[in-house]
Amino acid sequence: MTFAARTYVALVHHPVYNREGRVVTTAVTNLDIHDIARASRTYGLAGYFIVTPVLLQRKLVSDIVAHWMANEGIPDQPRRQAMELVRVVPSLAAAVERITGDHGAAPLLAATAARPAAHTVQWERWRQDCEDDSRPVMMLFGTGWGLADQVFEQAQIRLSPVWGPTSYNHLSVRSAVAIALDRLFGR
Amino acid sequence: MTFAARTYVALVHHPVYNREGRVVTTAVTNLDIHDIARASRTYGLAGYFIVTPVLLQRKLVSDIVAHWMANEGIPDQPRRQAMELVRVVPSLAAAVERITGDHGAAPLLAATAARPAAHTVQWERWRQDCEDDSRPVMMLFGTGWGLADQVFEQAQIRLSPVWGPTSYNHLSVRSAVAIALDRLFGR
Repeated sequence: MTFAARTYVALVHHPVYNREGRVVTTAVTNLDIHDIARASRTYGLAGYFIVTPVLLQRKLVSDIVAHWMANEGIPDQPRRQAMELVRVVPSLAAAVERITGDHGAAPLLAATAARPAAHTVQWERWRQDCEDDSRPVMMLFGTGWGLADQVFEQAQIRLSPVWGPTSYNHLSVRSAVAIALDRLFGR
Repeated sequence: MTFAARTYVALVHHPVYNREGRVVTTAVTNLDIHDIARASRTYGLAGYFIVTPVLLQRKLVSDIVAHWMANEGIPDQPRRQAMELVRVVPSLAAAVERITGDHGAAPLLAATAARPAAHTVQWERWRQDCEDDSRPVMMLFGTGWGLADQVFEQAQIRLSPVWGPTSYNHLSVRSAVAIALDRLFGR
């Protein structure tokens, strides 16, 4: 199984930081569902988890996905193919459990952050490591002001920030996911 | 002057195709302003043109930009630094005129498309060409179902589509811009 075909993206709405550095739960953004599903489909991923502990938010996402999946008569087949990848879960633990059930092995968790940190892995190096491996992989992206430290502590891999040639590191999470997938699977 | 520092992104709302292949004018999307401004700032670009012939849409964009630029008291300085790059123009000709005025040379126009086409240039090859050059560059991205042929006819360069390992080519324009900038300026 190729690296992409056993890789999942998780968009984490809790636990993440807010502007003041407190751990909060962010609201789901409609375009995050669409843009990241389309990017995940483009690069051939196995699935896209939207993680929120808020029941009504999970229901909102499920309703949006069901809307696009049900519209078989309308011509937006590409949108439907992207939406097929979306899985809605209350926690990262629930996502890990689903992946483990599907693959018979627990996923390697790889956290991403805009902030610099110690012990980060370079993208190209990590891509090669994963291609030589056979385990499923879940890449974790934080909404708000980024993943809480407790998520990083669970992750086996911490990827180096997606930066350009400037010190400005305020990409949207949608852009960061697209760039990350292109770095790993776009060649 | 580095390649990035003389490069502009243009998000074109007219002339672009709709689903049926007719030339239309699309509506501005708020998140296109923010996401692409933040990506342009991340990679150190010279500016980000939002192109629409509709006066009220240009006024909408200008009002949104002015809102973020004026809020000097609130702590979202990064948002303001991104918004500084936005220029609102009625046509590509107007964007070309502004760039020519600022640089004393007309920009090289590089069109992007999700559809395959003849005579496309590979990203890495084009990056090297541009680094060896000194002209300003404007990269053209289409909203809706992509740039109309008349735009491609004006462009000197046609970049190969941003594709992953699948045949699915339905990235959002926000994702496509982020990936394009990372391919050119992200190493």
